Parts: sequence; structure tokens; C-alpha cells
Amino acid sequence: MNNRFEEIIGEIPSIDNTILKDTLNHFDKLAKPRKSLGKLEEIVARAAAIYGTANPAIDRKVIFLMAADHGVTNEQVSAYSSEITYQMVLNFLKGGAAINVLARHFGVDIVVTDIGVNGDLSDKNGIIHKKIAFGTNNMALEPAMSREMAERSIEIGFEVFEESFARRPIDLIGLGEMGIGNTTASSAIISLLTGAKVEDVVDCGAGLPQDTVQRKIEVIKKAISLNQPDPYDAISILAKVGGFEIGGLVGCIFAAAKRRVPIVMDGLISGACALLALRLNPVIEDYLFTSHCSREKGHKISLDHLGMFPIFDLKMFLGEGTGAIFGINFIEAGFKLLNEMTAFDNLRNNK
Amino acid sequence: MNNRFEEIIGEIPSIDNTILKDTLNHFDKLAKPRKSLGKLEEIVARAAAIYGTANPAIDRKVIFLMAADHGVTNEQVSAYSSEITYQMVLNFLKGGAAINVLARHFGVDIVVTDIGVNGDLSDKNGIIHKKIAFGTNNMALEPAMSREMAERSIEIGFEVFEESFARRPIDLIGLGEMGIGNTTASSAIISLLTGAKVEDVVDCGAGLPQDTVQRKIEVIKKAISLNQPDPYDAISILAKVGGFEIGGLVGCIFAAAKRRVPIVMDGLISGACALLALRLNPVIEDYLFTSHCSREKGHKISLDHLGMFPIFDLKMFLGEGTGAIFGINFIEAGFKLLNEMTAFDNLRNNK
Repeated sequence: MNNRFEEIIGEIPSIDNTILKDTLNHFDKLAKPRKSLGKLEEIVARAAAIYGTANPAIDRKVIFLMAADHGVTNEQVSAYSSEITYQMVLNFLKGGAAINVLARHFGVDIVVTDIGVNGDLSDKNGIIHKKIAFGTNNMALEPAMSREMAERSIEIGFEVFEESFARRPIDLIGLGEMGIGNTTASSAIISLLTGAKVEDVVDCGAGLPQDTVQRKIEVIKKAISLNQPDPYDAISILAKVGGFEIGGLVGCIFAAAKRRVPIVMDGLISGACALLALRLNPVIEDYLFTSHCSREKGHKISLDHLGMFPIFDLKMFLGEGTGAIFGINFIEAGFKLLNEMTAFDNLRNNK
Repeated sequence: MNNRFEEIIGEIPSIDNTILKDTLNHFDKLAKPRKSLGKLEEIVARAAAIYGTANPAIDRKVIFLMAADHGVTNEQVSAYSSEITYQMVLNFLKGGAAINVLARHFGVDIVVTDIGVNGDLSDKNGIIHKKIAFGTNNMALEPAMSREMAERSIEIGFEVFEESFARRPIDLIGLGEMGIGNTTASSAIISLLTGAKVEDVVDCGAGLPQDTVQRKIEVIKKAISLNQPDPYDAISILAKVGGFEIGGLVGCIFAAAKRRVPIVMDGLISGACALLALRLNPVIEDYLFTSHCSREKGHKISLDHLGMFPIFDLKMFLGEGTGAIFGINFIEAGFKLLNEMTAFDNLRNNK
């Protein structure tokens, strides 16, 4: 490991547990039955503990959307051909994707990064150009990438956050991704890091017919058996069965935590990212928030392993950060409740 | 039954199943994996079938917040004294309650109605004055209200919607309530209409200590045994163990359905309202949408009986429409996705 990388994954500030408790106490003083905002009170209290204040200005919210391709799509493990990644990136730039619609609805920025798309995007505006390669290698035949590339992908994610933060401070982020084949990579990662069987983790991804799911399972098993990732070494896992966008989002997680910014997870892929980040530094757990539980059964396995509950469950599996963005809005609404509601003791002053 | 009442609960327009199917098909053509917005696609398709168009202008959204008191609070079945109902109504008018905060956040109107608060609100502005009485009778000793009052409460809810609609058309509504003691009334209703045992339905309400829950169970059993509501007659149930705000919201449900406006339920109390409305006219089912599942165990029983799934679950139990308003926002977001996303076939036109 290089020094730069060690720096990125080290020294995460502790969250402020006094503010956490004070925030829960403040919720108890508001004009409502005690604890009646349920888990939203716990969510807001932990976010306050990250900010170091119960009264943050949640001004700029950003979905970091990392896009990359996967060599393993050569094994026919995906419902869509890998050129869809490239086409969807253009769609993000045009504003016609699901995440664009929701970003307008909720007032959230999107930062799109090409970290490894299998297509030339170098002449496009509105996208961060950080391509490591034109997609990963086919993990069924060789490691998806080198260790250096794996570390580099995390560094890139870190830099993308930092550069965006430098332009204008960020108060809340969500993880988004686009990459045909990335449920295959993420399922492999989740199996390795939770100890769950590959067949229990793997699901239909973007719509694989049920009779092809078995092939996806076999491909993942083959990739693991061939490449022998070390389950205690997150970089080994990321290099051998991961993806560039997965590493990129791990980097965003560390950058956000260092800036005391809460991080909202999306579906299966961000579950894999969270598990990798935790393996690199367990302190990161305090910074992670869920949004939905996706239809992919491996997502529930990752959430259970993390000991986290989802806020909502609509059996979505779209990716792009479409679940995370609803989670961002729940947190924002929760802070408004904390700070705008009347205190219970002031009720009798109403005339 | 009087003619006016028969008119209110009759002649609900059928929803347009062709538009429902067309909307699902349209979702399949968007630039995303098929069905990947999960149950949100089904929710939007049914709402489109209610509107009669997949392209509605969802302009005005309203939480109908009905407030009333309950004589059964004399039996010490509530965590708060009944004067809190009155104080909270003043808080709604001042804008300091949870629902006010969320209404500002989501751009939703609140229509507050005094349909039976045990306190004089007649000199207050910003509230609809439709008081039937200063709270219901104590159902542990006598029927909560007469059949006439029960029907009148439904008529009032109908009128409140109609009067608000006449001032400015309404596109989406949520059910909200305030009434200390109303989880006791609602639990009785849910037990009677689902056949679930009283002890399986009753929970802590606004925060009853666990050792007092048994008393709440006994009080409900006594009220049912004393008043003998006919479980096949919704008006009998509403009169004997119900509440004015519960009847009022049933009236809102019918008024909204007649105007082809989707209705978003909140927690336990709106579960009871939905069951009553369905007993009066089963067609109403097509118009009802869930939001959250509350911490009250009777709420899940009512949703299961209705065959409905909640969108989110944060173990909230605040009432006021605080769950419903998030549900409203999911539906609104869903329509934007339907109407603003690029078609899959247009992806390759991106350059």
C-alpha cells in the first residue's frame, strides 16, 4: 500500500456521542408522543453526531454516480449488453434517467464520473473524466484488475468528492452507480465478506431470466476459485472480483467521512461498497445510512450483516442512486422536524 | 339511513383498467431494467387509473386533519390527558406540529377540522368548524355516539373535502387525525372488522406503559360486550366504539373517490377508517394507498387484512398524517419518473 492510500482510509473522526444523546433528548421534548418518530429519531441523532451539531444547514446534497464496465459480461451474466453503460452515461448527461428526474424532484446534485466505461467519453461535458481502463478484465478468466488499479479506484473516488467539495461544500451524499455486470461483482464481494453462500446471494440483477441465474452463480464461483481473493483483505477482493465504480464509491465513502458528511447507501452495489469500506476501517460504520432494501436478495444479506434496517422497501432494483435519494430526503425531513417543531412544554402557551 | 348518506357512500366511479395496463407498459419502455421501480410502478399505475390519465397535474395535495376527543379517556387508556387534543389543534394553527413541518417540506396543504374537540375553538381562524359534540361518550359505559351522529360525522368529512375542493381542485390527499384516545377506538374497530382478537390488536398508542396495555384491552372488550356492535354494519361499529374524527375521515375517503382523487392512508387510525369505508362500499379499495406501517401492531393486522403492503417502516406512531405525507411524495415522484424519463428506444439517439 502506498502512503496516499493509507492516508485515505485512516484517521476517520469519531462521531460526537454527546450530541447523539442530546439530539435524542431534544426529540423527547417536542410536541409529540415520546419516540413517536421511531427510527427516524435515531437516524437524525446519528447524523447530528456526525455533523457535530443538531442544527446543520443541509444545503448541498449530492449523488456520486460512478460508471464503469465489467469484463465478466462476456460470460452472459447480465440481462443487458455492456454498451448500455455507455448509453446510460449519455442519458445522465442529457437528464433523462431515473436519477435525473428524482434529483430535480428532491433538489439534489448529481456528480457523474467515468471511472472505467468501455467507450470513449473524453469529449463529453458534464462528467468527471477519471477512466482507469475500458472496463475491468473478465474475472472468470483472470483478476478483474491489479491491486494498483484497485487502490487507484478508491483514490479516484476520494479525489472526486474532494474536488466537488472544494467547488462548494457538501452536506449529505448518496451512492449511485451504473455498470452492466456490477451485480455479479457485488454478489461475489458480498459472499466473500459476509460468508454467505454464493447461491444465497445471487439474484436476477437487472432482469436475468431465472434459468440463467445458475450460470451467474457458476461464473462467480469460478472467479473466486480461480483468483483466490483473501477475504480479510478488501483490496484483494476489490482487485480480483470487484469493479472500478465499486472502488470509486468506497473512495467517496472515506472522503465524506473525513469531511463529517453522512453517507446514504443505495442497493446491492453500495452494500458491497459498505462492506469493503468497513473491512478497510470499521469506524466507517458510524457514517453509513441505509435507504431502501432492493429486490436483490444479496442486498438484505449485506444489510443484515451490517446490522442495518432499510427505511423503505418497494422491491426496486434500478440502481443509479434511486433508492439513496429518497433516503437523503428522509434525513432532511427529519432534521426539519427536530428543529422546527414546537416543544411540548410550549403547547400551553398557545392561545 | 338518510338519502344524503346513501348518496355519499354509493356510486363510486370504476377505475380505468386500460390506463392501468397502459401505464405499466409505459414503465416497461423507459430507460431502466423492466419492473425495476418495483411496487412504485404498480402504485403509479393504479393512481393513473383513478385519474383517468397517466399524465395528471399533481398540483394541490392536502392532508385532511380531523380532530376530536374520546370519552373513553376517562378509563385511563391513554398516555396523555385529553386536553392535549385541544392544545395540539392550536399548535396546528400555529404551524408548530410535526405535520406542519412536513407539509412545508413537501409543499402540501393541511385542512384542519374540529369535528368534536372537547374545548371551545369557535373563535379560532384557520380551522373548519364542524363540531358534533365536545368529544364522544365513554364507550365503556354507553355507545360512543348515536347512529345519527355517526352518519353525520361521515357527511361532515364529505362536506369538508367538497368545500375545500370547490375553493381549489385537489389532486391527492392524505388522512390525518388528532384525538387522544383514538387508538383505543381504532383498535376496537380493527378487531371487529378483521376478526382479530382484541389482545392481538391493542398496542401502546401514544406511549402507554406496557403494564397499562392490559387495562386498554379490558376496556375495549367491555365496550364491545356492552354495546354489541354489529360487525357487518359499519355505522353500528362507528357509533358504538368509534370516534367523530374517524367518521370524518371515512367521509373524506368517499368524497375523494367520487372526485377520482387517490387517498393515502397514515397509521392505525386510518387503517380503521379504511376498513369501515370498505365495509360501506368495497369499491373504495381501488382508491386507497398505503404509506408506512406504524409501530402499533394493529396497523399491520389492518394492512394484512386489506392485502396491502406499506411503502416504508420506521416504527413511527405520531399520527397527524405524518406517514401519509411521505406516501404522497412517493406517488408524486413516481409520476415524474413515468413522465420525464427517456424511453429505452431513444437511448441510442444520445450523442
